[in-house]
Amino acid sequence: MHGIDEKTMSELLLVLDLAGTFVFAISGGMLGVQRRLDVFGVLFLSFAASSAGGITRDLLIGAVPPAAIADWRYLVVAVGAGLLTFLAYLRMARLHTAILVSDAVGLALFTVAGAEKALNYGINPVMAALLGMLTGIGGGVVRDLLVARTPPVLERGLYAVPALVGAMLVVVGEGLNWPIVPTAVVAAAICFVVRLLAIRKGWNLPVAQSESRGERNGQSG
Amino acid sequence: MHGIDEKTMSELLLVLDLAGTFVFAISGGMLGVQRRLDVFGVLFLSFAASSAGGITRDLLIGAVPPAAIADWRYLVVAVGAGLLTFLAYLRMARLHTAILVSDAVGLALFTVAGAEKALNYGINPVMAALLGMLTGIGGGVVRDLLVARTPPVLERGLYAVPALVGAMLVVVGEGLNWPIVPTAVVAAAICFVVRLLAIRKGWNLPVAQSESRGERNGQSG
Amino acid sequence: MHGIDEKTMSELLLVLDLAGTFVFAISGGMLGVQRRLDVFGVLFLSFAASSAGGITRDLLIGAVPPAAIADWRYLVVAVGAGLLTFLAYLRMARLHTAILVSDAVGLALFTVAGAEKALNYGINPVMAALLGMLTGIGGGVVRDLLVARTPPVLERGLYAVPALVGAMLVVVGEGLNWPIVPTAVVAAAICFVVRLLAIRKGWNLPVAQSESRGERNGQSG
Repeated sequence: MHGIDEKTMSELLLVLDLAGTFVFAISGGMLGVQRRLDVFGVLFLSFAASSAGGITRDLLIGAVPPAAIADWRYLVVAVGAGLLTFLAYLRMARLHTAILVSDAVGLALFTVAGAEKALNYGINPVMAALLGMLTGIGGGVVRDLLVARTPPVLERGLYAVPALVGAMLVVVGEGLNWPIVPTAVVAAAICFVVRLLAIRKGWNLPVAQSESRGERNGQSG
Repeated sequence: MHGIDEKTMSELLLVLDLAGTFVFAISGGMLGVQRRLDVFGVLFLSFAASSAGGITRDLLIGAVPPAAIADWRYLVVAVGAGLLTFLAYLRMARLHTAILVSDAVGLALFTVAGAEKALNYGINPVMAALLGMLTGIGGGVVRDLLVARTPPVLERGLYAVPALVGAMLVVVGEGLNWPIVPTAVVAAAICFVVRLLAIRKGWNLPVAQSESRGERNGQSG
Repeated sequence: MHGIDEKTMSELLLVLDLAGTFVFAISGGMLGVQRRLDVFGVLFLSFAASSAGGITRDLLIGAVPPAAIADWRYLVVAVGAGLLTFLAYLRMARLHTAILVSDAVGLALFTVAGAEKALNYGINPVMAALLGMLTGIGGGVVRDLLVARTPPVLERGLYAVPALVGAMLVVVGEGLNWPIVPTAVVAAAICFVVRLLAIRKGWNLPVAQSESRGERNGQSG
């Protein structure tokens, strides 16, 4: 920690985390409603979507019990957002744009908080950036696996890339001793803006040339 | 630990865990046979169904290596139950009711043991109750994900709710200093009875109103 | 550790791990291309296929942060192999046999390294053998779950069995105080040869008799 007191930093991380938790819990809840899960399933997906990224990061860096388990506030926020989604799904589904924007906010918050935390636990810069990105995208991946679909983040759009850009900025800032709070704010803003541009412009990453769309069977492939 | 000696408690937890392991391993093995897995796949599903809930709980509370890894008895029980299922599937499939009842026993045992263990590791009461529930339902969730299906526990029936009720009772009992063994027995009994009633009566939780059954694509939803 | 110095052993483990990482990353990348994932998805599957087995083992034995997170070389090797696969998929797809053989090498390396590491962390012999096997097959399981398919290793072929044989040999050798490096080489060779024979001869494990191919619904099975 360079020139910032522990308490300010951990409070900042908590606020970012809870805000991200709220918007990601909504994304989990909405997928749950769309897949006709019952209210328990919807709340489970809300909690998973909002917490699985951070829990995975915490297990990998040795921060046990993970924040989302040790601190009941994550649960309250996630369940609250899940219930809201369950009760007001039809109205929320109309707010398509607002939800995409909120999700981009969540991605930015989780990514930056995730990279900071990994650095604080002494993870090397390269993996800290990736763990920041994983904090941002991990909840969505687990949410998708729970309803047995290939996570869209692996297939199309630009979702992981803005997260990676934001996380790398945090790591570079730490390396160059930039002031931590402004760096975090700028990194989150850049992640957010890149994500919004990607949605707006319909940006996609390249897909490889493959012989056929058919799937090959066999253990190794 | 309030007024009970460590050794009695840990022996109680072990017996509950091994009994639950046996019945859950059967549920994993039966799904494996139904999905035409080979004998390795069937045994893998048996072990996953019986141990993934407890392993997840142990990783989250920092009890490493998890009991199911540190103690080979879990493995022996799970593999034994899996082999039994593999060899006697046709006869067991006819015992539909017996298997549902056994599964309810397993749910009750795992949930109570899981909540106790989380409390012993200093997890806050709210999360301890949820980790109890997760111990009960987690194995089934992982079992289902391994064959790429949405876990039924998220879709219909009353499976997580009885677990949550039992786990909450354990937590409340701990908070109010109730004697631990009778509390555990009553909590498990209530979980078991609620689960059986739910099967018998066909109870379901509500499902949200959604515009259509179709799935919406897009990263955030 | 019996009669071998720490440094030699950890260097041996690192080299085995990185070689296995390379070939497993290719298997992940190829599945990603076949499923039409974008370049991020392909690299994500490469990293998952090559590292998820070892990461799972490390979490279970308490080696945190896992090697694949603490050491950036795993990442570089996995991403390099993933990019290669992305760019040269069509040419690599023609090398079907070479890839099956490479995958068998990876299985042998990961299995032996995994069993050694579990023993070094004081895991009991039975579970150490299984954790060796899990190190070998775990990456492929996670790779398959990420694209929502039942892992072929659970369905057909002989993939886990050669791993288990190799891992058991490592464990027996440790118990009988055999010299560690020759034992590791022989165990890996046997795993490799059994796997190749299984591919060549089309060996399969038995599948249980089940009433029908149809799936039964219901929570417990």
